[in-house]
Amino acid sequence: MSDGFEILETHRCFGGTQGFYQHRSTATGTPMRFSVYLPPQAEKGPVPALYYLSGLTCTADNVTTKGGAQRYCAEHGLAFVAPDTSPRGDGVPDDAHWGLGQGAGFYLDATQAPWATHFKMATYTVDELPALVKARFPIDADRWGLTGHSMGGHGALTLALKHPERFRSLSGISAIVAASQVEWGRGPLRAYLGDDPAAWAEHDACALLRARGWHGDVLLDQGEADGFLDGLRPELFEAACAEAGVPLTLRRHAGYDHSYYFVGTVIGDHVAWHAERLYGA
Amino acid sequence: MSDGFEILETHRCFGGTQGFYQHRSTATGTPMRFSVYLPPQAEKGPVPALYYLSGLTCTADNVTTKGGAQRYCAEHGLAFVAPDTSPRGDGVPDDAHWGLGQGAGFYLDATQAPWATHFKMATYTVDELPALVKARFPIDADRWGLTGHSMGGHGALTLALKHPERFRSLSGISAIVAASQVEWGRGPLRAYLGDDPAAWAEHDACALLRARGWHGDVLLDQGEADGFLDGLRPELFEAACAEAGVPLTLRRHAGYDHSYYFVGTVIGDHVAWHAERLYGA
Repeated sequence: MSDGFEILETHRCFGGTQGFYQHRSTATGTPMRFSVYLPPQAEKGPVPALYYLSGLTCTADNVTTKGGAQRYCAEHGLAFVAPDTSPRGDGVPDDAHWGLGQGAGFYLDATQAPWATHFKMATYTVDELPALVKARFPIDADRWGLTGHSMGGHGALTLALKHPERFRSLSGISAIVAASQVEWGRGPLRAYLGDDPAAWAEHDACALLRARGWHGDVLLDQGEADGFLDGLRPELFEAACAEAGVPLTLRRHAGYDHSYYFVGTVIGDHVAWHAERLYGA
Repeated sequence: MSDGFEILETHRCFGGTQGFYQHRSTATGTPMRFSVYLPPQAEKGPVPALYYLSGLTCTADNVTTKGGAQRYCAEHGLAFVAPDTSPRGDGVPDDAHWGLGQGAGFYLDATQAPWATHFKMATYTVDELPALVKARFPIDADRWGLTGHSMGGHGALTLALKHPERFRSLSGISAIVAASQVEWGRGPLRAYLGDDPAAWAEHDACALLRARGWHGDVLLDQGEADGFLDGLRPELFEAACAEAGVPLTLRRHAGYDHSYYFVGTVIGDHVAWHAERLYGA
């Protein structure tokens, strides 16, 4: 096939199928891996999808093996689609720090050298992968929900706010909500987009929410024992939602940290949240 | 402490606590790692435990990160205890093949050189770790259930049948049920125990069941697309149970393979099975 689509592995899981796939991305100019869980309901026709964007250092594998979303997706009839967090490979630039470069694409289209050639993760995530998934899987492209963890929460919030016509429902887990205001975000935004803070505001969920609003409500979960709270700042998103008049369900969980043990604990609620909105009117 | 007990990490998970621990084992003469999930119910007093033995190449980490048992244990009020599959370290013998040596202890006490010094996994699993867990965690040592996957299913079946006073309930997932009759088992049994087949029969679940019976019923799950069926042979256990008059629930699952996607799909039923028997009369 011209898109280089390959099935890497598939496994029966909770009555559906967990698959890992690879294709050649025109957006990034590299092979890209992703995973799709199809619930049992997909055997009867296209199902809505929950799109999960992963955090720094992760691939699609982390949430697929450790998140435990499949059980809930099988209950609710949602597909679960997980892309990688950046282009990868020998010809792709990288940085010695895990917070920039491979594994740290921040779901934006880079404009600065050496990143601009391959780091087109916004185009990849919003346009290319959904089109490929729609063409190859029984997934209803008109009913997509978007969520993510940490840097993936940043990706979910910013991409949904910039493309409200693509995403019907929205949530985040331990999300970076104000990338231009925190150390975790400012370094990569400067590297990928240059020194102009106006460019950064287009990749800051709080700034986008104030500027554009959102057509629905938002669910945000945060562990109170998260060691990275300085980079996440859920209170800033709470304030932005209040200003913008966007209904927010912000849940703070005592004792929970930033790990997949937290993601696994709350992912079922996110699947249910999106299912309610994607199967609703 | 004299037992070298250390907390390696803990995470809040489904209202309880997932921990990873290490101690110095007198049985193996090495440091040993294990994991314990304590459900929310453990805050009010000791809870029963489901002991999960892992398969070839695994540590305690595989099931803890990928098995998804915590949710079900939180629902049913069971602790989940996962030991390692062998002693490990530079001073511990190993083999170039993953089916023998480190990661492949087969839950027996080796009698042959060079294994006999450290490979005392039966003593470790039946005596030492439960005693340590009882002393350090709110777990009721009189209410233990035993399960495992693949080589760990072999461990669960053989150890429960040899120590029926220790284990109230029993199940297996994709278990090696007749180690002395399959290639996966014969090589390690010969290496660890020597050339006498009479010694092997003491580590063959089917032979033990015929010789000793079992005080309860057994749940066994098997994927029909498992690539390792030649080493598992659930039909032999079915026949042994029929001969011994032991009630067996053998479930064959079309399309499922040997992976943790299968374990995760059925682990909830195993947690429920053990909870019913451990909380019952």
